[in-house]
Amino acid sequence: MNKEPLIFVTNDDGIFSKGIKSLVEVAETFGKVVIIAPDKPQSGMGHAITLNQPLRLNKDSIFMNHESYTCSGTPVDCVKLGVSEIMKQKPDLILSGINHGENTSTNILYSGTMSAAVEGAMENIPSIGFSLCNFDADADFSGAKTIVKKVIEMVLKNQFPNNICLNVNIPKLPENEIKGIKIVRQANAFWEDRFEKRYDQFNKPYYWLTGEFGKSNPEEGTDLHTLSQGYVSIVPIQYDMTSFDSLEKISKWFD
Amino acid sequence: MNKEPLIFVTNDDGIFSKGIKSLVEVAETFGKVVIIAPDKPQSGMGHAITLNQPLRLNKDSIFMNHESYTCSGTPVDCVKLGVSEIMKQKPDLILSGINHGENTSTNILYSGTMSAAVEGAMENIPSIGFSLCNFDADADFSGAKTIVKKVIEMVLKNQFPNNICLNVNIPKLPENEIKGIKIVRQANAFWEDRFEKRYDQFNKPYYWLTGEFGKSNPEEGTDLHTLSQGYVSIVPIQYDMTSFDSLEKISKWFD
Repeated sequence: MNKEPLIFVTNDDGIFSKGIKSLVEVAETFGKVVIIAPDKPQSGMGHAITLNQPLRLNKDSIFMNHESYTCSGTPVDCVKLGVSEIMKQKPDLILSGINHGENTSTNILYSGTMSAAVEGAMENIPSIGFSLCNFDADADFSGAKTIVKKVIEMVLKNQFPNNICLNVNIPKLPENEIKGIKIVRQANAFWEDRFEKRYDQFNKPYYWLTGEFGKSNPEEGTDLHTLSQGYVSIVPIQYDMTSFDSLEKISKWFD
Repeated sequence: MNKEPLIFVTNDDGIFSKGIKSLVEVAETFGKVVIIAPDKPQSGMGHAITLNQPLRLNKDSIFMNHESYTCSGTPVDCVKLGVSEIMKQKPDLILSGINHGENTSTNILYSGTMSAAVEGAMENIPSIGFSLCNFDADADFSGAKTIVKKVIEMVLKNQFPNNICLNVNIPKLPENEIKGIKIVRQANAFWEDRFEKRYDQFNKPYYWLTGEFGKSNPEEGTDLHTLSQGYVSIVPIQYDMTSFDSLEKISKWFD
């Protein structure tokens, strides 16, 4: 790539989070950066888009040296607005994150961070979602930044495949204890859902989602196993969700 | 299946829509039906879940002969609440829809209807999302109901594969003009996004998503092509989004 890359940055924790600040600090060493991120936390929004109400977009001065906007919508709204309204061209790279907390396994379906990257893949733009396995608002992103830099270098140096994006999860370890990077598949693990049922001041019930993520004995070659061994996991993610293995079986039902 | 099946019904257009009423009318001929559906339209919510605020669940009497609830959350919230709080057991079948409007191709990522079915797949419950290619609130669902009946019969009669769900799209045609059912793959088509930019009474801009869905010359063997030929399309959908084709290529970047 000869010209300076145009890099679009977003996230789902909101524009005020430490994770997006850390991501911008790495991205700006590679090219021109434009930031559009939610004006409030949007975790768990998945691939939601805002259809039934309008969106607000406000220019801000959070990132001194970069064009930056807060958006009232979801992470996917940010990507759509960024590409079609603000940049009016395809960026060379979409970076989403760094998420406060892991987005491994089936969590990519719930994750706003990863859905922004999937939307980038659908627009045929090389896109990467980054997550640090640490939910703390004041997490230490120093090791993560080194990984982010390395992954961006590789993506800019190589031909990015069509129709995919990358899901990068970084273990919660000091930089010198991270053993390396492995390219693996999504683990097949799930939330054991529970709802907290409480009663409001009028004695009417409300429910709040909680639960535990099932991680016991993840299979080798998966993101969960890789992280448990002290490596960064990268899963290439596609948006074609067809179960090709089932086509023939189900076709027979309707013969 | 010897015992009467327990069937959970939801949608994304909201509990007051004609589509879910039509779906319940078919479902009740097969077994015991429980309905939990959003109290307002939730189109475009994708796989979003509600994390940052509590959920309300209100018993209603919309469906005279069935246990039925409105939920303040997303379609995926409805599935989670239904399985873990209301039914307290896995239903034998989750039905979502009938959506007013198609959910073909990459639209499954944005679709609340299909995300409810994908959540069912993740909970290892046979799940089907139904959509009629007609966005009209007063659409004629009579032909669609015949298709829904046929698909449910086949699903109850056969061993449903693990980790998948079905995406059923029904063409907007009189019943006697529907040519049959085909099991196909997801087409690779996209929205050409545009935002309507308008100004409010304080002269501040707002943006509203619109656009055209690119359908020109869909490939044979895809849902879009199948529907254009007058057939019902069924795409088996998996939630493993790993791009296995890219694993080796990207591994080489980090050797």
